[in-house]
Amino acid sequence: MILPGGYIKDLLRQAPGTAVTARGWVKTRRDGKKVHFIQLNDGSSPTDLQVVAEEGVVAPDVIARVTTGASLSAEGELVASPGKGQAVELKARGLVVHGAADPEHYPLQKKKHNLETLRPLGHLRARTNTFGAVFRVRNVLARAIHRFFQDRGFMFIQAPIISSSDAEGAGSMFQVTTLDLESGKRAEFREDFFGCRTYLTVSGQLEAEILALAFANVYTFGPTFRAENSNTPRHLAEFYMIEPEMAFCDLNDDQDLAEAFLKSLIEQVLTECRGDLEFLCKWYEPDLFRNLEAVLAGPFERLSYTEAISLLQKSGRNFEYPTGWGCDLQSEHERYLTEDLLKKPVILTNYPRQIKAFYMRTNDDSKTVAAMDVLVPRIGEIIGGSQREERHDVLLDRIREHAAHGMNEESYWWYLDLRRFGGVEHAGFGMGFERMMMYLTGMKNIRDVIPFPRFPGNAEF
Amino acid sequence: MILPGGYIKDLLRQAPGTAVTARGWVKTRRDGKKVHFIQLNDGSSPTDLQVVAEEGVVAPDVIARVTTGASLSAEGELVASPGKGQAVELKARGLVVHGAADPEHYPLQKKKHNLETLRPLGHLRARTNTFGAVFRVRNVLARAIHRFFQDRGFMFIQAPIISSSDAEGAGSMFQVTTLDLESGKRAEFREDFFGCRTYLTVSGQLEAEILALAFANVYTFGPTFRAENSNTPRHLAEFYMIEPEMAFCDLNDDQDLAEAFLKSLIEQVLTECRGDLEFLCKWYEPDLFRNLEAVLAGPFERLSYTEAISLLQKSGRNFEYPTGWGCDLQSEHERYLTEDLLKKPVILTNYPRQIKAFYMRTNDDSKTVAAMDVLVPRIGEIIGGSQREERHDVLLDRIREHAAHGMNEESYWWYLDLRRFGGVEHAGFGMGFERMMMYLTGMKNIRDVIPFPRFPGNAEF
Repeated sequence: MILPGGYIKDLLRQAPGTAVTARGWVKTRRDGKKVHFIQLNDGSSPTDLQVVAEEGVVAPDVIARVTTGASLSAEGELVASPGKGQAVELKARGLVVHGAADPEHYPLQKKKHNLETLRPLGHLRARTNTFGAVFRVRNVLARAIHRFFQDRGFMFIQAPIISSSDAEGAGSMFQVTTLDLESGKRAEFREDFFGCRTYLTVSGQLEAEILALAFANVYTFGPTFRAENSNTPRHLAEFYMIEPEMAFCDLNDDQDLAEAFLKSLIEQVLTECRGDLEFLCKWYEPDLFRNLEAVLAGPFERLSYTEAISLLQKSGRNFEYPTGWGCDLQSEHERYLTEDLLKKPVILTNYPRQIKAFYMRTNDDSKTVAAMDVLVPRIGEIIGGSQREERHDVLLDRIREHAAHGMNEESYWWYLDLRRFGGVEHAGFGMGFERMMMYLTGMKNIRDVIPFPRFPGNAEF
Repeated sequence: MILPGGYIKDLLRQAPGTAVTARGWVKTRRDGKKVHFIQLNDGSSPTDLQVVAEEGVVAPDVIARVTTGASLSAEGELVASPGKGQAVELKARGLVVHGAADPEHYPLQKKKHNLETLRPLGHLRARTNTFGAVFRVRNVLARAIHRFFQDRGFMFIQAPIISSSDAEGAGSMFQVTTLDLESGKRAEFREDFFGCRTYLTVSGQLEAEILALAFANVYTFGPTFRAENSNTPRHLAEFYMIEPEMAFCDLNDDQDLAEAFLKSLIEQVLTECRGDLEFLCKWYEPDLFRNLEAVLAGPFERLSYTEAISLLQKSGRNFEYPTGWGCDLQSEHERYLTEDLLKKPVILTNYPRQIKAFYMRTNDDSKTVAAMDVLVPRIGEIIGGSQREERHDVLLDRIREHAAHGMNEESYWWYLDLRRFGGVEHAGFGMGFERMMMYLTGMKNIRDVIPFPRFPGNAEF
């Protein structure tokens, strides 16, 4: 197997004269006079290793099998490369093709492929330059997330995936069952595996609150699900969320953490994935670096919802959607604030109570709740959070207000208990991992930033 | 919020004389003459911070609310502690109770609780010493897993949770659906969300193979599911698996990696969770350190299945289950090998073809496959893996052999394609995260090493 030091990204940094074995998949082969040039990649680097095989070194029947997509090992010596873009190339002494890729049938030939065409080829598209770059960024982003929280003493927790709570209304949730669906009988949930109706989780927040009230600072990073029939470039049925939750924490601390978090992730990815971002910038999003660096440029603007509404009303713009107090902000409003007016990320706070979730803390004005949305230019909301209602009586009232919408007081017994026993002000936020991936990579369709996207009509691979 | 340096684990290491604010939950309060001793913990440490509040510093109505489970902030100065077990204690100047915990109703009083009794209290049990220790180990273990692989250049990947493949036989899989289960109609899966039957994944291996054949070395660390009606201390319906997959890798490399992995995890947890392990050793598993250190003591024994059968037959033992070639090994056999005969971890390889999965590589003898199981004393199999069948024709035959058991050649089109285009020898393994947690913590019931266990009849919280 490939050990540290033996990846192509490592070999590209070695000194000429070093004897090495390179392993990977052929990107292209070009034949010169008495010499073959093979671009080899093992997925570790946006730059291929050029393998140079002189005539006579490799048998003609072997070279014939060195075509795009074939796997091979090449053994030889690194030499200074006369070509641009790499310091060294591999002068092959021997070459083994492990698995060929018949050019008649291998669907990824050297031309640039349309991303739509590649989507049904989920088992092969990771070998392209584009998906190589995207998934390397994905790995670095995941690592950066863990590093940010671990460095701050946060405990990583795994919220349950199968849930019996239908907090957000069962309509948009997937059901999980072992009942015989082909029996033609009405479901008896008492007979189901868990003895009750169960769903795939839409958020780990409520469980994160449990653990924040034991470990102070915790975070989840796991899959969440929405069964909405949204066939858009921004929605997945299965996606990842990061949800930190902090005890002894108010909305100000929450905003500070969200801002530090976003900046830290961008800094780490800019540092560790420079080559991949350059590739993505060139082919997919010319403003990529400008967009990312704008987030790092200074402090985020912090505004209340009420101030934002006032700015929108003073703007003189003809917005399609209304801007009255109590209306939810639309994409056009967010874009005006972040892109035109303030030209930087904005944290909006203290939204009207009636447009936000039941668990958000009611402010002293009784009209607003301690919610926050972090908006960034070009993408809009990237983080949503709030201080949670820690007062038992206020929370109970809120749950009862929602009873008409199907909320069930009894099923929140433990969530209410957290307010009876050692409750304390606490807050948290959520970030969609794939939304952040789109921002970092410049990819326009969320189905292209996750290896195996799930959306209506598709659960392939 | 609590920032780095401000956790109780940090305060305990500060010099006397430092002015600090400590936040956390009250473990116990003891009243001396003219002084109150409060054990405070924020979940960061197995050791509490002792807060000393002299009479007059804190009003009697405040002290009355300082009972087990209450959340509070205490501000004051660290002073050298006359007591054992801690270098410093906090001499309080002020104290705020954020949330009381009425002793009449708070279920966690200072006595030691039975683990069974705590299980229905999933929203509070994390505040006990036991679950504090267990979940801190869980966080460190998760971090150690990522560190091991990231240090070796492996890419973290997230395999899909919702899957349309019923590889392991649909009987033990949860179904995922948006169909109306109360309609009393026979399910029409064409009308379901994904347009086909879908399940919760039982393994990310097949998808990991896709990405290993693009990025060489990858690993998953995510939830997997079994709908088996197993009400045992060793089974969960929802649990976590780690599945590395390596291209250009044979069964020898696979064994090397598995051994290095296991040792690295144990070393990291021994180093970083010493205090928690000491607590768990004292109360739950007196042999804890001995068991863990035995794994680190030397190289694992490596035996073929055939050799193991021969050793079992020569043992002179009266085993309950047969030991003939072709039989699967039972717990009693594994224990004999690891605990009695060899007294160390053992990697068994090359099992009979007919008792192992279709994707394992057939050996030259045609009777065995390149499988491996890593067995450790006291717990048995902790890792299972194999080299994968990379030969298209051999794999196709195997899938066809399994057609009688419901395997469907068409649904493996992409898995077979991986053998048509740039295939190469590759291998991997799987480790159950909660099994490893049981081994590391000495906990005897798997429901006590995960915050919110899912098992037949239970999906609470």
